Amino acid sequence: MIRIKYHAPGTPPATLVPPPSDHTGPPRITLIQYDRETIFEGQFDSFEELMTRFDSTKINWINIDGLNDIALLRKLSEQFHIHPLALEDVLNTSQRPKVEHYEDHYFIVSEMIYRDEQSRIAVEQLSLFLGDCYVVTLQEESKHDVFEQVRARLRAGRGYARKMKADYLTYALLDSTVDQFFPILETVGESIEEIEDELLSKPTKDTLKSLYQGKRLLLQLRRAAWPQREIFNTLIRDDTGLISKETQVFLRDCYDHSTQIIDILESFRDLAAGLMDVYLSSLGLRTNEIMRVLTVISAIFIPLTFIAGVYGMNFNPDHPWNMPELDWPYGYVACLTLMATVAFGMITFFKRKHWL
Amino acid sequence: MIRIKYHAPGTPPATLVPPPSDHTGPPRITLIQYDRETIFEGQFDSFEELMTRFDSTKINWINIDGLNDIALLRKLSEQFHIHPLALEDVLNTSQRPKVEHYEDHYFIVSEMIYRDEQSRIAVEQLSLFLGDCYVVTLQEESKHDVFEQVRARLRAGRGYARKMKADYLTYALLDSTVDQFFPILETVGESIEEIEDELLSKPTKDTLKSLYQGKRLLLQLRRAAWPQREIFNTLIRDDTGLISKETQVFLRDCYDHSTQIIDILESFRDLAAGLMDVYLSSLGLRTNEIMRVLTVISAIFIPLTFIAGVYGMNFNPDHPWNMPELDWPYGYVACLTLMATVAFGMITFFKRKHWL
Amino acid sequence: MIRIKYHAPGTPPATLVPPPSDHTGPPRITLIQYDRETIFEGQFDSFEELMTRFDSTKINWINIDGLNDIALLRKLSEQFHIHPLALEDVLNTSQRPKVEHYEDHYFIVSEMIYRDEQSRIAVEQLSLFLGDCYVVTLQEESKHDVFEQVRARLRAGRGYARKMKADYLTYALLDSTVDQFFPILETVGESIEEIEDELLSKPTKDTLKSLYQGKRLLLQLRRAAWPQREIFNTLIRDDTGLISKETQVFLRDCYDHSTQIIDILESFRDLAAGLMDVYLSSLGLRTNEIMRVLTVISAIFIPLTFIAGVYGMNFNPDHPWNMPELDWPYGYVACLTLMATVAFGMITFFKRKHWL
Amino acid sequence: MIRIKYHAPGTPPATLVPPPSDHTGPPRITLIQYDRETIFEGQFDSFEELMTRFDSTKINWINIDGLNDIALLRKLSEQFHIHPLALEDVLNTSQRPKVEHYEDHYFIVSEMIYRDEQSRIAVEQLSLFLGDCYVVTLQEESKHDVFEQVRARLRAGRGYARKMKADYLTYALLDSTVDQFFPILETVGESIEEIEDELLSKPTKDTLKSLYQGKRLLLQLRRAAWPQREIFNTLIRDDTGLISKETQVFLRDCYDHSTQIIDILESFRDLAAGLMDVYLSSLGLRTNEIMRVLTVISAIFIPLTFIAGVYGMNFNPDHPWNMPELDWPYGYVACLTLMATVAFGMITFFKRKHWL
Amino acid sequence: MIRIKYHAPGTPPATLVPPPSDHTGPPRITLIQYDRETIFEGQFDSFEELMTRFDSTKINWINIDGLNDIALLRKLSEQFHIHPLALEDVLNTSQRPKVEHYEDHYFIVSEMIYRDEQSRIAVEQLSLFLGDCYVVTLQEESKHDVFEQVRARLRAGRGYARKMKADYLTYALLDSTVDQFFPILETVGESIEEIEDELLSKPTKDTLKSLYQGKRLLLQLRRAAWPQREIFNTLIRDDTGLISKETQVFLRDCYDHSTQIIDILESFRDLAAGLMDVYLSSLGLRTNEIMRVLTVISAIFIPLTFIAGVYGMNFNPDHPWNMPELDWPYGYVACLTLMATVAFGMITFFKRKHWL
Repeated sequence: MIRIKYHAPGTPPATLVPPPSDHTGPPRITLIQYDRETIFEGQFDSFEELMTRFDSTKINWINIDGLNDIALLRKLSEQFHIHPLALEDVLNTSQRPKVEHYEDHYFIVSEMIYRDEQSRIAVEQLSLFLGDCYVVTLQEESKHDVFEQVRARLRAGRGYARKMKADYLTYALLDSTVDQFFPILETVGESIEEIEDELLSKPTKDTLKSLYQGKRLLLQLRRAAWPQREIFNTLIRDDTGLISKETQVFLRDCYDHSTQIIDILESFRDLAAGLMDVYLSSLGLRTNEIMRVLTVISAIFIPLTFIAGVYGMNFNPDHPWNMPELDWPYGYVACLTLMATVAFGMITFFKRKHWL
Repeated sequence: MIRIKYHAPGTPPATLVPPPSDHTGPPRITLIQYDRETIFEGQFDSFEELMTRFDSTKINWINIDGLNDIALLRKLSEQFHIHPLALEDVLNTSQRPKVEHYEDHYFIVSEMIYRDEQSRIAVEQLSLFLGDCYVVTLQEESKHDVFEQVRARLRAGRGYARKMKADYLTYALLDSTVDQFFPILETVGESIEEIEDELLSKPTKDTLKSLYQGKRLLLQLRRAAWPQREIFNTLIRDDTGLISKETQVFLRDCYDHSTQIIDILESFRDLAAGLMDVYLSSLGLRTNEIMRVLTVISAIFIPLTFIAGVYGMNFNPDHPWNMPELDWPYGYVACLTLMATVAFGMITFFKRKHWL
Repeated sequence: MIRIKYHAPGTPPATLVPPPSDHTGPPRITLIQYDRETIFEGQFDSFEELMTRFDSTKINWINIDGLNDIALLRKLSEQFHIHPLALEDVLNTSQRPKVEHYEDHYFIVSEMIYRDEQSRIAVEQLSLFLGDCYVVTLQEESKHDVFEQVRARLRAGRGYARKMKADYLTYALLDSTVDQFFPILETVGESIEEIEDELLSKPTKDTLKSLYQGKRLLLQLRRAAWPQREIFNTLIRDDTGLISKETQVFLRDCYDHSTQIIDILESFRDLAAGLMDVYLSSLGLRTNEIMRVLTVISAIFIPLTFIAGVYGMNFNPDHPWNMPELDWPYGYVACLTLMATVAFGMITFFKRKHWL
Repeated sequence: MIRIKYHAPGTPPATLVPPPSDHTGPPRITLIQYDRETIFEGQFDSFEELMTRFDSTKINWINIDGLNDIALLRKLSEQFHIHPLALEDVLNTSQRPKVEHYEDHYFIVSEMIYRDEQSRIAVEQLSLFLGDCYVVTLQEESKHDVFEQVRARLRAGRGYARKMKADYLTYALLDSTVDQFFPILETVGESIEEIEDELLSKPTKDTLKSLYQGKRLLLQLRRAAWPQREIFNTLIRDDTGLISKETQVFLRDCYDHSTQIIDILESFRDLAAGLMDVYLSSLGLRTNEIMRVLTVISAIFIPLTFIAGVYGMNFNPDHPWNMPELDWPYGYVACLTLMATVAFGMITFFKRKHWL
Repeated sequence: MIRIKYHAPGTPPATLVPPPSDHTGPPRITLIQYDRETIFEGQFDSFEELMTRFDSTKINWINIDGLNDIALLRKLSEQFHIHPLALEDVLNTSQRPKVEHYEDHYFIVSEMIYRDEQSRIAVEQLSLFLGDCYVVTLQEESKHDVFEQVRARLRAGRGYARKMKADYLTYALLDSTVDQFFPILETVGESIEEIEDELLSKPTKDTLKSLYQGKRLLLQLRRAAWPQREIFNTLIRDDTGLISKETQVFLRDCYDHSTQIIDILESFRDLAAGLMDVYLSSLGLRTNEIMRVLTVISAIFIPLTFIAGVYGMNFNPDHPWNMPELDWPYGYVACLTLMATVAFGMITFFKRKHWL
């Protein structure tokens, strides 16, 4: 659940090892190049081919899906002056979200959390390099990403999308990753309410399991959400000139969303913790009730059974001191009366204790 | 319980979608325009009509009830230079309370928490724009707001109400939202005391449920109260000139109230957490007592029943070694004596253990 | 328990409403006026009368017991330039302790916590205005205050009391309120030890109740102690000239005492939380022991009773396969031997499990 | 356990009352005076006598054991310009460790925690005044202190001891108090391991008591350790010239030790908290097991006893419908077979539930 | 478990006592001396011998395995101006990781946590002195260290290894200690998942023990990880010139790794805490189920056994009021019917309570 990917201890720094992945083919390299008037979209077989199209007077968004081509990454690194350690972080896909400033670009690691086709929660690392005229994004898998609507907006050319610079594109991409949290949080909220209902009506081992898994999921989301807010906090305080004042207003909005996400996460954690208490209490209450029933029934019948046992003894009735009651004409009636009295006494006792 | 309203991920920033609402008619637009001497109050059918009345030498309080008319909001935005993201926040009604400074105005998002007609706790977002000569407030529902007494004070024209500027009006409105917390906190405090009494006398599943719901309500109030204090903290440190020194003294009072609210909330949370412990302990104590009763009764009667059982066996008394006791002249008496001795021994044992 | 006093929401700011009080007569107005050489002490019927005596070359300590004369407060406010909001805070007696600086005076709200005549813990708000030559104190009730010894020291004129300025008088008064905490903390400490003894010997529902009430009291003390320390922290950093360097040394001593109080409070909270765990564990241990006794007795006698039951059956002994044991010459002895073996086996089993 | 010593509320500030003490004789006044070449050690009957020996060109360490001679303290105060409040703190021996700077000296309050002759943990307040050429230390009891080895080092004159100034002597004394923590922490650590072993094997009420007492001791150590670190933190940032750069390196070492002590204390607290959970769980597990045994035995034998009971009934066998089984030739065998089947069924049921 | 090694209280500062160790022979002294072109590697019998080889134009890495030769350490101290307190810290091997700056070198204490040959987790202190042209490392044991791959990289001379200065070597060594955390964390993560599975299926005392030990290990790792991050935080803010800008980029990578380690550790702690709750709940659930079975069986059969007991009584049937039922022709059938009715009633009752 908590992904710990790491190089074998002692590996030299900046060693490039592709992350284990189901994805085997060559990476998919695409370019979207645009300015206010024009937009070009293309897929390339090699990085060299792509660079022939690169135009520093426009905004170039290079997206690479799949991290298994080390040679490609080296070329990328050379072209955009990417530090070897940053490149290593791109490949070590269990990085904590962070932003680092290098001489002429920002390096941002974020997490894309989304529901995949089977509606399971998938986590994928997004590495992003933001320079003055380019954005390079690197993703683990090629099957799915959360940027389709950013692309659609670029194509349509409406709104701010094409009027602003690479920093705004970066904002749009990061905003897409943040927005993914909300539908997931919504599901979590719903499942907490379901668990709550179950707990108060009929708690089972499965309820417990769901609750624990919910807590684990919240932990995972939290580990992504807190550093993500840090990223926005760093970017809106940017003084490198890579991010314009105008875009910072938009990033402030992302920061607000992150804060809201963290707020909701913490509330959910509080609720989940409270539910565990409710669970324990509700178990205690049930045990209590069960015990009460057992005790009441036992306490009433055990003495009665004892009395019956006494008069079932076979002492020789020829001796006058041996069980003379058995020979009384109304012995049985007396015995039943005694039993009824005992039972009645017990019931009164329990009523007074509010156990009945 | 925790409202998560969000645009579908990937929606372009500053997209304006009215929040889902039961309220369907056109929004109600009202203007209260006043200075020291005069006050005008009117309701308008359109924003254009209202702007003909707008007078920048007076204080103009424009209130819009209902957020479903996007066209109106766009005009508003144009008139008062409202940033599209702020406008989006107005519509996305699960915003965290916050204050943002734009060039010539403050944008404040707060929460109105009040008891509605059915005395349920209702939460409604209040969006407020404070400029030099105007205050624009936007509310979700038109049925209810918490500003009636502010209006009454403006009409009466006594006290500070009409002598001060738009910043003081903002203070008065925010103060109204803060004041709503106190009666709600009072009810919460009372219900905590009720739960406490119940817990110590006769805890049931319903007590547990009330306790959990109380904790949830505290969580919700807390999520509103902490950022609200932040708002006042920002405003009393204002250096934009939009808020006068004089008004800041009043805002400091709001800040104190917010602190007091947070203080009480945290105390209540502590108490509620303590009550959960009390609940668990009190359950444990009851189980304990029930078990003691069961054990004492069982431990006394089970051995007696066994003795009775032994002398109820039917071994053929013709053989001299078979149950000779049955033929003793005082066998029955001896048997009862044995039973009494055993019972007495048990009772002594339990007395010594302080179980009786 | 947690006093929530508030104005009805929407009340105009600085509305003056006397707090609900048992005290009905007019407030008691007293003046103590002193310098190094002289001291005057008097009680006045009206504020005007008092002001004729006021002498700005001496230290004037005006004390007002009872807050129900709004007119008096207005005159006070006029005389000493007290801000209407401060006056409102004087009357709203569930204020959080705080210190506020106004142009020519400090406004301090503190809490007097003391044991009243019935040795219950009473909480009363103290409002204090410190100007260059005066101290005005306002109290809720006239019956009791914690300043008698300050007055005695002023009368005696020994020590620092009359040699220093109004700031030192303020220190002396605040110091009196802080000192009240210690005897209360001492009692709390003793009651924690009592509860602890009870918990480990014979926990009952009353122990639980005392523990919970102890925790509540600690919560209340804490809510008073933390902001009180803040007051001293503010005053020893004073740069308004109202508080001399010399007095600041004394206030630092108060700050230390406050820190010590908070320290002890937090330790007590930790202990009380630990006691709740001890309580739960000790309950668990008792339940455990009770269960063990029940189980051991049941497990030994239930099989024996069963054996006795078998040989109490009435199968027709005329058929040779029906209960031939009953007709054995040593059947009874064999049966008792079997029972002893079973009992011995059970006892061995429980001994091995360390249940006996 | 938590010592709360305090003056009666309302006592004038700087009132000197000797702390309650078993120690009754006059205080023991000793002087150690040294420089690089010489060392003088003496005990004096009065402070005046001592001051005739005082030599400001050497380092003078004045140690006073016993705080019951107020006159002596007044003379001390006069001689070294000690503030009355500091003197009060010397006598009020439940001070929180702290350091205060007065014009020409530091006033340091620390705690000596050590094992006394009966190897109980004793806590004694150490008050220390550090001037340019003198160190004055005041202790509560005269029987024991933790400075013997500092004295030995001064006498021997090896190492740094006599080469450095009064600040280094202060360091050496404080270092001695810090070092005392380690052996105590070691014992605590051992006792935690013992408790842990007991908990997992055979928890009793005494284990619980030890655990709770361990937690209390940790709380007490913690209350001493945290402010002690603050002292070193203040001293290594000293800019008054009373503490040389060279000594600050040594004080940094003390700071590190304090940090380590706090670190260990916090770990122990975590462990102790974890042990409480282990205790509760292990109780739960035992209860569980006990219940299982009870349930299995009861569930097997109770139905069997019932069957035996049925065939022990005395219905008149003359009527053909009354208990015809009793007259079957193989009735007894059939009955035993039925019993065996029921028992076997129960055992199978419990095996499937993994209760056996 | 928590190693508390300390000098006897009162030991003079900077006393050098070798730590207790199994390692008895003389320490192993090795030198690796390199620059871009050359590398020399050698082992020396004495420090003097080694110093003849020392060359300040190259990078000299002196490694000393074993701390039992005090004389050697004194020579080292003299040669590299090592402060006696630093030397003491080298020997006191339960130091908290830290970095200290002395005039011309850094002194760094870190912890090597690794799995030894028996794959137990071993903790060893690493002391490191970083000067302009040298790195001195001191280790406790000579058997094992985590630097083999650093040596291999130096020998190979590829990558950054030989191109950079002593600061980079320091980075490489510290990076090796940090990297060791990841495989250990991975095992911890796996064991948490195992415990989780066990808890939800069949919790035993061993599961509890594993969980507690896991928590203890996490505590220990945490005590190492937090201060380690502090080291990197200090080094990347270095302004002494001992660490180049270029190396700081690498140290920032270490800082990120440390942050990630702490992040994972905290998540694990949260999970482990949650597991304890799951454990308690799952125990409660089992107890609950066991009780339910016991109660249902008891409640059904105890009344039946009582009825059987009644008709097993031996009242003299000659009196017409004594047990006339026994003489009814269908008495037995009636009795069985009564029993069936009672049993059916009980079963219905439990079905309605959802206990069956």
